[in-house]
Amino acid sequence: MPRLGEFEFIRQLLAPLSRNAPGAFNLTDDAAALSISHGHELVLTKDAVVAGVHFFADDPPDLIARKALRVNLSDLAAKGAKPVGFLMALALPQSIDDDWLKIFTTGLGADVDTFACPLLGGDTVATPGPLTISITALGEVKAGHMIHRHGALSGDILCVSGTIGDAALGLDVARGSYAGLSAANKQFLLDRYRVPQPRLSLGQALANRDSACLDISDGLCADVGHICEQSGVGAVIEVAQLPLSDAARAVLQHYPDAIHRVLTGGDDYELALAIPPANLAATQDHGRKNGVIVTPIGRFVEGGAVTVLDGNGRALALSSPGYHHR
Amino acid sequence: MPRLGEFEFIRQLLAPLSRNAPGAFNLTDDAAALSISHGHELVLTKDAVVAGVHFFADDPPDLIARKALRVNLSDLAAKGAKPVGFLMALALPQSIDDDWLKIFTTGLGADVDTFACPLLGGDTVATPGPLTISITALGEVKAGHMIHRHGALSGDILCVSGTIGDAALGLDVARGSYAGLSAANKQFLLDRYRVPQPRLSLGQALANRDSACLDISDGLCADVGHICEQSGVGAVIEVAQLPLSDAARAVLQHYPDAIHRVLTGGDDYELALAIPPANLAATQDHGRKNGVIVTPIGRFVEGGAVTVLDGNGRALALSSPGYHHR
Repeated sequence: MPRLGEFEFIRQLLAPLSRNAPGAFNLTDDAAALSISHGHELVLTKDAVVAGVHFFADDPPDLIARKALRVNLSDLAAKGAKPVGFLMALALPQSIDDDWLKIFTTGLGADVDTFACPLLGGDTVATPGPLTISITALGEVKAGHMIHRHGALSGDILCVSGTIGDAALGLDVARGSYAGLSAANKQFLLDRYRVPQPRLSLGQALANRDSACLDISDGLCADVGHICEQSGVGAVIEVAQLPLSDAARAVLQHYPDAIHRVLTGGDDYELALAIPPANLAATQDHGRKNGVIVTPIGRFVEGGAVTVLDGNGRALALSSPGYHHR
Repeated sequence: MPRLGEFEFIRQLLAPLSRNAPGAFNLTDDAAALSISHGHELVLTKDAVVAGVHFFADDPPDLIARKALRVNLSDLAAKGAKPVGFLMALALPQSIDDDWLKIFTTGLGADVDTFACPLLGGDTVATPGPLTISITALGEVKAGHMIHRHGALSGDILCVSGTIGDAALGLDVARGSYAGLSAANKQFLLDRYRVPQPRLSLGQALANRDSACLDISDGLCADVGHICEQSGVGAVIEVAQLPLSDAARAVLQHYPDAIHRVLTGGDDYELALAIPPANLAATQDHGRKNGVIVTPIGRFVEGGAVTVLDGNGRALALSSPGYHHR
């Protein structure tokens, strides 16, 4: 535990993150109280991240904090929920000092404000192991309006938000790959790996229409496979349709094999959607209004397999369907 | 990650723990949906435990699981809340195998049933560090009826549930102390350390009356101090009034200094209450009806200090006010 001590850490650095949440009692009680808007229900999700597994221990502390929160907000986005708050357990190794905690909580505070998602409570413990951050995020949707993984039908359009593959390529950059890439492209990809953009507005706009949705954390192919599995359908992904950033295109120009990373690498935190053809235009319009491009990249079909077609309509063989939680 | 793999672990061993929670969707979606009873609000708490810090890595896996859940349920008990479910993040070291997971989830499942508290979701990650379990527990109370740490008044009676000090003495036993103690007494104390009893019925009975309450996790003196700090009062604890188990009495008979462990050791997970004198009889009655003895051990007074008086009315000097999260 840093010099600050647990109680001062809570009082000085964590309690301010509970601003605008009267039911957090300024983090002075054992628990928080929370009411839900009339006619709504709660949406609950929990993602944990571990130094050396999900991020590098020497990543900037503010970005570690923001990603830990955002991967949870991304789940809320995929379910069509509006964030209402979060709880956080921090397991801190001895090496963490007060400065680290200040930068960490400053970054977290920025996202608490950005997403109107206050800290409601949590726990801080010492660990002889790596820094571990476990966040439970709470959102709300109109009762019965949570979007599910199941519900995709054969004939639905498969769409994704934003661009795909940047985060996996950014992780490669962090590990020293793609030597010839420009510094600006490297930084772009690294930023996309470190600070995902939860597509909350898009998800909330979808919550009233027929769709299946999840956020792409395990990798595009694996996650489309999750929708298929829960919906009892198959899917076809057309590589030529994938929305790619300029930086990702620059990588692929010199390292064409990196398409496998784009298809199976994790950490995009974009949404993958199944949309009835009649809703496509409206969904893309919702995206545009919220600053997110929604791109059709394939379709759902009978069967259960995820097939990836290259630009010539040939099926690609993928060595690994996706990220299996290193 | 054990041989079972993350997805089979969820499907075979975790999903059954979501029984009776339709909004957990059998753990097949990114998030859970939860409605709250009309006129109620949610109570949220989060406690994390780490092998080698909060428990021994070679403790029985079923007991590790049950304690990890119960320390959270104890917070709900202290707030007067009825459990509705929990989320769990597990960071698993390589050494954990399938058998360990089966025993762990069997123990957890027993408590899911005992406390009608289903698993709603969570996350399983690999860690190069020690086993880490982070649980977020959700309960509900009538809106506005959560019991707080603040609210104790000078003149209120200080009461505790059950017996005090067993868990700290049990931890000492686990570390090889109290050589002369009988095997039965050792086992009793060890059980009290390993499997706390969340006082849910008592807490719910209190939720309609004026009281302040918390659960004793940091140690009696430190936690009574927390009530005092939040309430702006002081407290007097009379050692002669402390409810002690036969096993604790046996320890104290041979090791009188262990009274310091009883007063400042953590992990009791009994409730400490501030009760107006007029409510004492009714509170004790509530306890009796729910199989829990409620014992007055002192009173709240003007000031801010926690004073401990021995059998002769002399103030005891305590080296440490309580458990400071090793």
